[in-house]
Amino acid sequence: MLKASDIAQHNTRESCWVIIQGQVYDVTDFLEEHPGGSSIILRYGGKDATEEYLPVHPPGTIEKELPPDKHLGELDPQSVGGVAVTKSKPEAATTSIPLDLCLCLDDFEKAAKAVLSKRAWTYYSSASENLHSFRLNRQDWERILFRPRVLRNVQRVNMQRKLLGHHSNLPLFIAPAALARLGHPDGELCLSRGASAYNIPFVVSNAASVSMEDLAESMQGAKGRGCLCLQLYVKKKKSETLASIVRAKQLGFTALLVTVDTPVVGKREDDDRYKAEQALETQGPRPPPPVTAEGIQQSLQRSSTDEVFVLRGPYSSTLDWNELAWIREAWGDDESFGLKGIATAEDAHLACESGIKRIYLSNHGGRQLDSAPSALRTLLEIRNLCPHVLQQCEVLVDGGVSRATDIIKALCLGARGVGLGRPFLYALSAHGTAGVCKAIQILSDELETSMRLLGVVDLDHLGPHLVNTRELDPFILPPGPALHPRQSRI
Amino acid sequence: MLKASDIAQHNTRESCWVIIQGQVYDVTDFLEEHPGGSSIILRYGGKDATEEYLPVHPPGTIEKELPPDKHLGELDPQSVGGVAVTKSKPEAATTSIPLDLCLCLDDFEKAAKAVLSKRAWTYYSSASENLHSFRLNRQDWERILFRPRVLRNVQRVNMQRKLLGHHSNLPLFIAPAALARLGHPDGELCLSRGASAYNIPFVVSNAASVSMEDLAESMQGAKGRGCLCLQLYVKKKKSETLASIVRAKQLGFTALLVTVDTPVVGKREDDDRYKAEQALETQGPRPPPPVTAEGIQQSLQRSSTDEVFVLRGPYSSTLDWNELAWIREAWGDDESFGLKGIATAEDAHLACESGIKRIYLSNHGGRQLDSAPSALRTLLEIRNLCPHVLQQCEVLVDGGVSRATDIIKALCLGARGVGLGRPFLYALSAHGTAGVCKAIQILSDELETSMRLLGVVDLDHLGPHLVNTRELDPFILPPGPALHPRQSRI
Amino acid sequence: MLKASDIAQHNTRESCWVIIQGQVYDVTDFLEEHPGGSSIILRYGGKDATEEYLPVHPPGTIEKELPPDKHLGELDPQSVGGVAVTKSKPEAATTSIPLDLCLCLDDFEKAAKAVLSKRAWTYYSSASENLHSFRLNRQDWERILFRPRVLRNVQRVNMQRKLLGHHSNLPLFIAPAALARLGHPDGELCLSRGASAYNIPFVVSNAASVSMEDLAESMQGAKGRGCLCLQLYVKKKKSETLASIVRAKQLGFTALLVTVDTPVVGKREDDDRYKAEQALETQGPRPPPPVTAEGIQQSLQRSSTDEVFVLRGPYSSTLDWNELAWIREAWGDDESFGLKGIATAEDAHLACESGIKRIYLSNHGGRQLDSAPSALRTLLEIRNLCPHVLQQCEVLVDGGVSRATDIIKALCLGARGVGLGRPFLYALSAHGTAGVCKAIQILSDELETSMRLLGVVDLDHLGPHLVNTRELDPFILPPGPALHPRQSRI
Amino acid sequence: MLKASDIAQHNTRESCWVIIQGQVYDVTDFLEEHPGGSSIILRYGGKDATEEYLPVHPPGTIEKELPPDKHLGELDPQSVGGVAVTKSKPEAATTSIPLDLCLCLDDFEKAAKAVLSKRAWTYYSSASENLHSFRLNRQDWERILFRPRVLRNVQRVNMQRKLLGHHSNLPLFIAPAALARLGHPDGELCLSRGASAYNIPFVVSNAASVSMEDLAESMQGAKGRGCLCLQLYVKKKKSETLASIVRAKQLGFTALLVTVDTPVVGKREDDDRYKAEQALETQGPRPPPPVTAEGIQQSLQRSSTDEVFVLRGPYSSTLDWNELAWIREAWGDDESFGLKGIATAEDAHLACESGIKRIYLSNHGGRQLDSAPSALRTLLEIRNLCPHVLQQCEVLVDGGVSRATDIIKALCLGARGVGLGRPFLYALSAHGTAGVCKAIQILSDELETSMRLLGVVDLDHLGPHLVNTRELDPFILPPGPALHPRQSRI
Repeated sequence: MLKASDIAQHNTRESCWVIIQGQVYDVTDFLEEHPGGSSIILRYGGKDATEEYLPVHPPGTIEKELPPDKHLGELDPQSVGGVAVTKSKPEAATTSIPLDLCLCLDDFEKAAKAVLSKRAWTYYSSASENLHSFRLNRQDWERILFRPRVLRNVQRVNMQRKLLGHHSNLPLFIAPAALARLGHPDGELCLSRGASAYNIPFVVSNAASVSMEDLAESMQGAKGRGCLCLQLYVKKKKSETLASIVRAKQLGFTALLVTVDTPVVGKREDDDRYKAEQALETQGPRPPPPVTAEGIQQSLQRSSTDEVFVLRGPYSSTLDWNELAWIREAWGDDESFGLKGIATAEDAHLACESGIKRIYLSNHGGRQLDSAPSALRTLLEIRNLCPHVLQQCEVLVDGGVSRATDIIKALCLGARGVGLGRPFLYALSAHGTAGVCKAIQILSDELETSMRLLGVVDLDHLGPHLVNTRELDPFILPPGPALHPRQSRI
Repeated sequence: MLKASDIAQHNTRESCWVIIQGQVYDVTDFLEEHPGGSSIILRYGGKDATEEYLPVHPPGTIEKELPPDKHLGELDPQSVGGVAVTKSKPEAATTSIPLDLCLCLDDFEKAAKAVLSKRAWTYYSSASENLHSFRLNRQDWERILFRPRVLRNVQRVNMQRKLLGHHSNLPLFIAPAALARLGHPDGELCLSRGASAYNIPFVVSNAASVSMEDLAESMQGAKGRGCLCLQLYVKKKKSETLASIVRAKQLGFTALLVTVDTPVVGKREDDDRYKAEQALETQGPRPPPPVTAEGIQQSLQRSSTDEVFVLRGPYSSTLDWNELAWIREAWGDDESFGLKGIATAEDAHLACESGIKRIYLSNHGGRQLDSAPSALRTLLEIRNLCPHVLQQCEVLVDGGVSRATDIIKALCLGARGVGLGRPFLYALSAHGTAGVCKAIQILSDELETSMRLLGVVDLDHLGPHLVNTRELDPFILPPGPALHPRQSRI
Repeated sequence: MLKASDIAQHNTRESCWVIIQGQVYDVTDFLEEHPGGSSIILRYGGKDATEEYLPVHPPGTIEKELPPDKHLGELDPQSVGGVAVTKSKPEAATTSIPLDLCLCLDDFEKAAKAVLSKRAWTYYSSASENLHSFRLNRQDWERILFRPRVLRNVQRVNMQRKLLGHHSNLPLFIAPAALARLGHPDGELCLSRGASAYNIPFVVSNAASVSMEDLAESMQGAKGRGCLCLQLYVKKKKSETLASIVRAKQLGFTALLVTVDTPVVGKREDDDRYKAEQALETQGPRPPPPVTAEGIQQSLQRSSTDEVFVLRGPYSSTLDWNELAWIREAWGDDESFGLKGIATAEDAHLACESGIKRIYLSNHGGRQLDSAPSALRTLLEIRNLCPHVLQQCEVLVDGGVSRATDIIKALCLGARGVGLGRPFLYALSAHGTAGVCKAIQILSDELETSMRLLGVVDLDHLGPHLVNTRELDPFILPPGPALHPRQSRI
Repeated sequence: MLKASDIAQHNTRESCWVIIQGQVYDVTDFLEEHPGGSSIILRYGGKDATEEYLPVHPPGTIEKELPPDKHLGELDPQSVGGVAVTKSKPEAATTSIPLDLCLCLDDFEKAAKAVLSKRAWTYYSSASENLHSFRLNRQDWERILFRPRVLRNVQRVNMQRKLLGHHSNLPLFIAPAALARLGHPDGELCLSRGASAYNIPFVVSNAASVSMEDLAESMQGAKGRGCLCLQLYVKKKKSETLASIVRAKQLGFTALLVTVDTPVVGKREDDDRYKAEQALETQGPRPPPPVTAEGIQQSLQRSSTDEVFVLRGPYSSTLDWNELAWIREAWGDDESFGLKGIATAEDAHLACESGIKRIYLSNHGGRQLDSAPSALRTLLEIRNLCPHVLQQCEVLVDGGVSRATDIIKALCLGARGVGLGRPFLYALSAHGTAGVCKAIQILSDELETSMRLLGVVDLDHLGPHLVNTRELDPFILPPGPALHPRQSRI
């Protein structure tokens, strides 16, 4: 039994203890190992970090990461009066939109906004800098019109598609989105249950807040329908990356998607602002940066070198086409391997030439480089510059999708499947697993109705003749000489 | 005399009674026959359904549909205390805009919104999903500019046109729009009186809330000016469809327009939301959908088969070019036969090749497939891809029309006539027959003035040289090789 | 001395008396002669019409129009208690923006709106139907960018231009705008004084509320600088038109501009609405229109014939190229003759072929046909389709001009001068003659500064190389085969 | 000791005294010399001018400009009761956004707006006329999309660039912006300290409120990192211009940029309005302008001649390519010489032909000719019409830059460096030197992150293949025949 007042002394880089769910841990040696950086831990040095820790870590994480002797014992509950415990601030409202009134995916966004804590809402909804790419994602879908055909027998509609190596009931999948436990205590389990129930793929984020093991188990409990795939962030430490791959293989994940657009984390300003406001409130103003040349040059030199703390985020910034080789090898199966985050025809072409079979077009929900094109624009660019990619690879897209009509448009233009991320996070935040299921059901109903109204009964009959892309065409690079591998490397 | 408390017991699928205008009916056997589905009836099982029933059914409907023995008798008015009678909720305001201040068609919309019940307003104004097509309908007209010519003698203006087989005083008609009794007790009679008074065609909706017989009679009372045409929804049951055709022929309807864009009903979300709110209020929350794979697979299997209740609406989803043949045959006169809901040059071309003489371009007021093109865009597409259709067929358009200038633009580009639906519903809702007449008079005045200002005295002199379509042109498929019947089938 | 109660009896078409400035007139025979229609007079039958009459008629109008015996005598002021005198409703606020704070033309609009009566504001600001053309007028100027050149000696700037036959100090003129006395008691005298002081042309509206004689006199009082031109509405009665021409010639007007875009008056809905509201308030609701076919047919027949009261406004709707001949002849000087209201290249071309030397491009401030192009678009169309017109004719433009940069843009593209109407009405409404002078001074200052910043010191050096029109170009008909007179007649 | 009541008598052009920081000066003879015009001094004639004087003049200015005998002595503080001292109106709020919450450059704008006086805010933020060019500056950057490449090793990023003759740490510089002491007592010293600390160039405005000497000294105090350049307004008096050049040379300024877009000062209406409001408040309404022709002609004649007071501002309006020669000669080093304010391909071409090595594209922050193109559009025009300029000259741009992504876009398209003006003024207004440093640090962080996300590690690898300019391309003059020197002179 440790006293709060004693624990409170250990709040420095030299000696840092934290309380999590009533247990006290010495995390001093772990500070530099923490994938999320040391500063977030130091903020809770000597204090109770439960609220911060819980929603972003799979259960058991700390037990797994720390040697047993770093578990110092239990907090004496009597002693708490004397410690500055971070209090739970129930900022979230408690009235959401009832499930019965969630009739489209955007309703879940409103429902979630009403119940989420500011922190969770900010993390989920934020995007980089001016939100330019974020807005493009939503707007571009509406810039495409349909060319609906009439007088066709549309009684029976086939919405099944082989996707991510799986015979899916619908041409869509749950896109990787992290930290679902910020929105609901069951976290990603809501997603795996929904994917299983509706038999669609769920691409698990490498930064999920539920362990891959628990997700795999929840799928098997559902008798094996649906499938799990892994979205992989390549970490600075090769060993961590390899460990993720091995676990996914062992758990029977059916596909691996390596994220290639995140050498550093984008500047998600709302999120940064939330953190800055919290820091200002809890720690007071920081000293202004040095204004002597020496001080600043020092900091600039740091930032052009390799040190962890100036590169945004814990991910590898050295990953290139050569380095990719060992990851493919570690996974060991090219058919179920893919790249996520392709944004240009050149890179799509290069990937195709490199034998990659699955290409996931995405601007990361507008969360990475602001002014990156929407996946839809990249898809149109590929149609213009290297259309063979659409024949040779399974092309997936995501970003700003909120209607089955968006999905149909992507499929008409050659995408094999369409991912949705935020909508499912909002659905689980508002209504847990039932929310996720309702969201999939809505998409299924919309898809069936829209296919009938378009005069099409099978996904394989969708094609460019059913859409009018003339509003977007002027913004897309026009067809030119075929791309060659060498050209596209530069 | 039946007691309310006894009636109240019959509120299940097994035994379902309803009260309508003080009479009690057993509708148990009729549940599955009801074109609007059984659930709406069940909601009123054991209760008074008068308010729901009246505005959506022509008078005498229930007497016609039910065998006499299903009329169980009268409600004992004394007994009402004990039954949960659905009370009239007078939600509607009572102050509209006076007729004298209705100077343009949009004024009627404001006037109607002020007096309509929420239900009626929602039904009339709603459109599908994101309202994208709905908004296009309004906006596209303004994207065309006139090229007005000067110094022409415009003293006498001829606004007459042969339209829908009728020598109409104006190049416009009342487009089919259902359930006019939601807006006014006289319902569609307001429309037939207006059409008769101004000698223009009225295309009666197959889902009108006044019977074709009563409409025909009201026209004859007006000494036979104007004309009635029938818009036909092909029902799942061939017999119902045939019956409608026979009645229309017998009543002397001058044209038949088969709707081809409604194999299922579009997702009109405001309307769905209204119903969901009502259901939540009266029946409480529904149990969440099943989240086991079995439960969901069951429901998905249902939806890919033929059962009535998963296909949205009571209409045939099997109607194709072949099946169309028996409808043409039943009608028996190709000259007065047409298709409503064509949205592409290919289908216009196909219809023309099939000997169809009348093609009605429409996206159903934006109420069917969201992202469908406006009729104006389809018209421009036809000009580019198969202009001969405009020579060989009578081409009609509707959608978003609110000014005579919109009508003139359509006529310049080759349309033969222009339909208006919602504006007349709003006019009758606010001011009954006088409202409808004023609306037509406004259009007539605007048309006369605008033709003079355009330098044109006869509708036949309108042509593409009088409009500048350069703002819309980039969005239209460009001229290419001529369409061939075979190509356009796919 | 006539008693009010006696006068009040004469309020019908059969006997109609009105009181104006204490004098009583019998206007029964004049009812059908009144250019503004009889209904406006009948509204004041038996009452005091002073407030309505004063701002829209030049002083002395009634004395000139009526035979002396129709002047019945004076109103007995004692008797007024018994008559329903139309009371002055001082609706206008009294606080305008001070002249010192009017720094740009739009400031005068705000200043005027603050002081004008609702009626005057509505008359000045209204435009037709959806205000589409009205808005285009403002927006189109901003769609052109400059290409400013640097390192040029811009010390001395020459802003003089021969315009409308006059050596004007500035390349702009006061465009015809009617009823200036609605805004200020001195009415158009404010305009003539300003034009004289700054030596620019003033094109007097044919519907001015100050007589041509008074305007001419005010100019001469100013020692003959500036010049007066006449904008001519061709009336239904040839004699009235001829009389205007003769008077203008005798008074030394230097140019005649025949308006060709007003066979009828456009539907200026705000203005119509104001009148409808007034009528409803003073006279109560009108009986609804007849809904029998007979009633309506009667009214429709009327409107397709020639009767005065169904054609909007008092102007000739028969004026064509042939009829124009006698007006040219009556004026007698082709060099100082022009047409106002040309909107297409074809009509510009036709005018040019017909020997017209001055072409005034205008959509009448957006007050005639809604969806007519802005004058700027017509100018660009002429550049594409018949550029020789710009060489052979003096081309004038107006519409939406509020900055000297707008003027420079028009001049770069080939216009010879630019007119402004509403801004001067707003200036005189807020600040009388001083307001008009300040407005011209602002334009002069802006023009001088903007020419310097554009690197140009003489109006003759302005040309298309100094503007970038690429934002508007896609909306303009492209160059094609040269227009021929015969083609362009249709 | 002078008494306030005596001083107050000297408030005319004939005898004008002012009080500055308790000292009394006779400025009568200086009135006509004052670069800012005499009227601003006369407004404070006989009064305390300290508040107006201080923020716009480097310390010691008055002592330097006036002969010693014009210093009349000290103000008797006892006597102040009787003089109309201009009181300090503390209009500015005191709560800004804390530095810790300034996360992007726009945050500084909000922070500054909260603390600046109305006068300072208006001076900094205003732009010419309708703000059209001002808005283009911001919007155009967002019209360009990136084409981010993936799978590249982006661990080390090189952001250094030789710029303005200096090895800068970043490809950006502090653009010339005047009167920094309006925002902060240290004025431009905040900028020189920031530039020095981060080793980037600072282009000092010729109208800086801190002397060049003090700025140079502050840089040397910082051990010589960063560099100073001079932006030169050519004055009406050649001697003043020469003096500035000589001082800059002596102080070791590394580059001279001659402003060529300011023969007169643009019409910055918000600023004019602020002054007009002040004048109206302190001096009451001015007499209206003369409305006689004589009065106005007189004033017009003045304005077309050379007199100082009708040309807006104190700058030379005669500067042309020939006159430029003596400035180049006075500076004496072509390598470090450049022109600021080029807006067309023709002038860029001409400059290049004339041997100019540095071309600064700018529309002066939208403060000169409204409707001038953004620098980005000029850059694209140069790419189309005379791309060799980008090879032969160092091309700089500014205007509307608020993100490192804007900078990267400019560099991709051929700019060598990018300037930011207002953002730094806002930063120093809100947080002094610390604000300026934070602003540079933010840009540095954004630049590093965005380069990594774009897949680029060296500024020299940026190129047009990394951007999609298709949204702006239609607005740019297309490639045509090469420009020739002679053609481009006209």
